[in-house]
Amino acid sequence: MSEIQEINRLTLDRLIRYYYWISEYCDPSAESAISSAQLARELSLDDSQIRKDLAAIGLKGHCHVGFDIRQVVDAIRQALGLTQTYRAVVLGAGRLGGAISSYGGFARFGLDIVALFDNDAGKIGLMIGGQVVQPLDHLESVVRQTDCRLGILTVPAEAARSCADRLIGAGIRVLWNFSPVHLHHPEHVFVRDERLFVALAELFYYLNRLESDPPPAGPAEPARST
Amino acid sequence: MSEIQEINRLTLDRLIRYYYWISEYCDPSAESAISSAQLARELSLDDSQIRKDLAAIGLKGHCHVGFDIRQVVDAIRQALGLTQTYRAVVLGAGRLGGAISSYGGFARFGLDIVALFDNDAGKIGLMIGGQVVQPLDHLESVVRQTDCRLGILTVPAEAARSCADRLIGAGIRVLWNFSPVHLHHPEHVFVRDERLFVALAELFYYLNRLESDPPPAGPAEPARST
Repeated sequence: MSEIQEINRLTLDRLIRYYYWISEYCDPSAESAISSAQLARELSLDDSQIRKDLAAIGLKGHCHVGFDIRQVVDAIRQALGLTQTYRAVVLGAGRLGGAISSYGGFARFGLDIVALFDNDAGKIGLMIGGQVVQPLDHLESVVRQTDCRLGILTVPAEAARSCADRLIGAGIRVLWNFSPVHLHHPEHVFVRDERLFVALAELFYYLNRLESDPPPAGPAEPARST
Repeated sequence: MSEIQEINRLTLDRLIRYYYWISEYCDPSAESAISSAQLARELSLDDSQIRKDLAAIGLKGHCHVGFDIRQVVDAIRQALGLTQTYRAVVLGAGRLGGAISSYGGFARFGLDIVALFDNDAGKIGLMIGGQVVQPLDHLESVVRQTDCRLGILTVPAEAARSCADRLIGAGIRVLWNFSPVHLHHPEHVFVRDERLFVALAELFYYLNRLESDPPPAGPAEPARST
């Protein structure tokens, strides 16, 4: 059995947001505690929900003080398994694949890109995003040699399903799918879709709705930056 | 009043997935109808939900035939306002900003990137993602001249809030936020966050859980590609 406890997806999403916000904005040398009310304000959430989420991973706040920052960060890291690095391969050496491979923020978060693949002969051998692009033929042996379980798919729509099949056949257990294609997959594989087209259509929809609704008169209120 | 009807976010998400899947995989010259059962199978959804969503935008299927493909696509385009192009500015000429600016798939979907900005003197004037990178100083005048209402934020965390303030001050009404920062914003502005760190932490979490749970014996079942 895994030591990682089962957490439902919405709670998981919120815990990660607490973790990220505290890691990014709190300075443990300057402040030692954060209240659920402060976190609620910053993340536009309900503070009783935050206390419930933190209680579920064994944390209890102190009256008039709040939660110990280091304890919150450590407890979330433990609960979610964010205490190690995770090897991944990237399929698709286009701009997005290159962006993911080279992004230092992901590396600091624990993502270790071990290889970048493409089937375009013009890209193979080039250095993109800190990786020498390898031919797709090497995929299975690289996954086996590195014991890699995470695959990141940034190939065009028409190649997505065959690439996903190859990744899964090679032993990948978790797939981060940036292609716009819905992937069928066996139950033992977890797939997370980044639906960027859905996002875009949603933005267009709101743009349309907002355009018929003029902004308030006078200079626009700036975003609060507190 | 807008002619675009109000649609809740989950329905919106599903309608866009129907639209995208039909546009991508159905050939109207070869087939004229699709059943809710087929769409349900392809998108791992419930077929009664699909019929309900389509009924809400005025579509009714025919017994033993299903829904007319062209009618579905047209009705969703109308309902969501996907019948025009939308101008956008991109802030941050890194790899992600470049990827978004140059991605033909978004352009075909109706996204018209009018300018790419950065404050890095080393990038200004370079051609990245089909755009000449402009200094941030030009932001307000470009937004005004192009009557642009959509801003795409791909700057690093530390610059995100000040850049969002400038975009909103310049008249941007809808923000696509790829920075990992939670942005406070006035009510007349819609913000969609792409929480890529949350995604990554979720993938790590499932990787951890799955690793303690071996895949089925024998060769891995390939993903179905039907």
